Amino acid sequence: MINIESLIRDLDLIRKQSPLIHNITNYVVMNNTANALLAIGASPVMAHSVDEVAEMTNIASSLVINIGTLEALWVEAMLIAGKTALNKSTPIVFDPVGAGATSYRSKVCKQLIEECKTSIIRGNASEIIALSDTQAQTKGVDSTKACNTKAIVVISGETDYITDGITVETVKNGNPMMEKVTGMGCTATAIVATFAAVNKNLLEAATHGMSVMGICGEVAAAYSQGNGSLQVNFLDTLFNINEEVIRKNIRL
Amino acid sequence: MINIESLIRDLDLIRKQSPLIHNITNYVVMNNTANALLAIGASPVMAHSVDEVAEMTNIASSLVINIGTLEALWVEAMLIAGKTALNKSTPIVFDPVGAGATSYRSKVCKQLIEECKTSIIRGNASEIIALSDTQAQTKGVDSTKACNTKAIVVISGETDYITDGITVETVKNGNPMMEKVTGMGCTATAIVATFAAVNKNLLEAATHGMSVMGICGEVAAAYSQGNGSLQVNFLDTLFNINEEVIRKNIRL
Amino acid sequence: MINIESLIRDLDLIRKQSPLIHNITNYVVMNNTANALLAIGASPVMAHSVDEVAEMTNIASSLVINIGTLEALWVEAMLIAGKTALNKSTPIVFDPVGAGATSYRSKVCKQLIEECKTSIIRGNASEIIALSDTQAQTKGVDSTKACNTKAIVVISGETDYITDGITVETVKNGNPMMEKVTGMGCTATAIVATFAAVNKNLLEAATHGMSVMGICGEVAAAYSQGNGSLQVNFLDTLFNINEEVIRKNIRL
Repeated sequence: MINIESLIRDLDLIRKQSPLIHNITNYVVMNNTANALLAIGASPVMAHSVDEVAEMTNIASSLVINIGTLEALWVEAMLIAGKTALNKSTPIVFDPVGAGATSYRSKVCKQLIEECKTSIIRGNASEIIALSDTQAQTKGVDSTKACNTKAIVVISGETDYITDGITVETVKNGNPMMEKVTGMGCTATAIVATFAAVNKNLLEAATHGMSVMGICGEVAAAYSQGNGSLQVNFLDTLFNINEEVIRKNIRL
Repeated sequence: MINIESLIRDLDLIRKQSPLIHNITNYVVMNNTANALLAIGASPVMAHSVDEVAEMTNIASSLVINIGTLEALWVEAMLIAGKTALNKSTPIVFDPVGAGATSYRSKVCKQLIEECKTSIIRGNASEIIALSDTQAQTKGVDSTKACNTKAIVVISGETDYITDGITVETVKNGNPMMEKVTGMGCTATAIVATFAAVNKNLLEAATHGMSVMGICGEVAAAYSQGNGSLQVNFLDTLFNINEEVIRKNIRL
Repeated sequence: MINIESLIRDLDLIRKQSPLIHNITNYVVMNNTANALLAIGASPVMAHSVDEVAEMTNIASSLVINIGTLEALWVEAMLIAGKTALNKSTPIVFDPVGAGATSYRSKVCKQLIEECKTSIIRGNASEIIALSDTQAQTKGVDSTKACNTKAIVVISGETDYITDGITVETVKNGNPMMEKVTGMGCTATAIVATFAAVNKNLLEAATHGMSVMGICGEVAAAYSQGNGSLQVNFLDTLFNINEEVIRKNIRL
């Protein structure tokens, strides 16, 4: 059950602290991810060079690892950044874009989850199932368990499910048109990372992030004519989100 | 001559099948290309790593190769993906961005066309002429022939020309403001690839793709104040295009 | 003091000549930078391969070097392009994104400024200070002097300061919401490069570029609801800027 007071407190903290979110993400979504982070009040930085990721992660409040357009040198940087974050107990939010589509993606997902002990994993159902399958195939664990991980797992869909393996939270806000905007899931990952930067209860942080995504998507879709205007209107809605908008629109 | 019934049938097929379009394209346009593919009803994937392109192309219905921001490792991936598509008879739509601007681009274009036997080549007049010149210089072929290729050639402009070397189709829809939106040509290439995924007659598929581009650009430009809003409105128009809009706006 | 007649003359020249601006810039902003250059009437090209940058810079009227998402191979290309521009006396406009955030960035900035003798450097106050500090630490020069460089220095902020080390020009147009649109500073760098392509007085060119940025941002912000619509409206305003809009809105 979403605690509205706690969600609003987190949102206020984000706007007061403007946490630095270090993103190693894909080319397709970088612009929108950065704008979404600016809209909510965070400070985005995109940096992927092996020559600087450790230093950048060291000054960040959260790390986003997104494998959308992965390649070898980037994976190397993701591992360096991820281990740096792990050492500093900085939250790592992992987006396994396209997990299961190629064996390379599956291998990289497994490696990142195991070596960096990612704190939160956000994907759609097929991606999360692919992660479980990978683990199941390679380790013989129970494949009904979402990955052999202690991470909070977020499954995006018509209803979002957020779980620590024991408690399951749900987010019912959203609109089907959001799936037609490229990178909306990647934005969700970055927004979750922003809440994780101000709330150590990661199950709560992830739920808050997904809730803000759902509310903004739903409010923006109501006055959008297609995925072009929804991409723009979503940012405007996120830019202006406040207690009043949350209370009026949240579905519990 | 555009066959409206056939165009509408293709559009319906795209929306029913949601074909997977594998794009190895440039950084500048990735977001808009992905959104345009989602708008029309296709499933975009962007993947360029030599470690996974073959596997990705194998599950795709069309392959887009666009050299806008090329570099050596990407060209290697383009060749692997292109040869994979060739083996599976998957259509390859090639966008020779900036052909002729540097000798490196000319060399890469020649190699991709020859080794991957690209199915459709879409560019503006100067790019297509540059391809012909390259072939002419290096092989002594008739430079009036657009490249030494069996590909369908699409020349974008005020009127678009689409030819298999024998028949020439024309598309008269469009608006000059489209040239002021970066990557509008790259979007056209991806939309053509989407029609090629559902229609084996590639001359027809390319003509249908260019026709939808022209109609959407023209309709969207009518209510756009500049290239910023045109980029957004174009996606919205593509998202909503249907038989009625096509019949009302098509110029034959 | 901005000379309005000279600014309008430059804008006319840009639209008549449509100068080719070669950008080696970061992934986050490429789309918006290209659209902004098209909006004002320039011809953008993004190319970063070591196999072609020299040739591309050779045909360009200005070179933009922006280190936002730098990595080793890109820095190599920046140095090749920069030295090519230096040899041809082509203006180089340098954007030291995130200077000071990591030691790698500081090192790269120093190298680019020294080896390419960048003509204009544009950043926010903290980036320009970081450049001075780097120079101060490594060379013992007076750290109050903005970098050990003969470049025109542009410091973006509520008021923009543009200086050749002797004269200081100011630009007072702008709106705080511009900071919430990712890459607005990178766009400013590219627009400054466009003015530098048509006006050899680089102090004037930089001042004109920043003035146009400020006016467009201010005009667009007045009818924008958030950073999403501001990104779009900014491009539309730039697309339509003319003598009348400049005279009506410029703050001297």
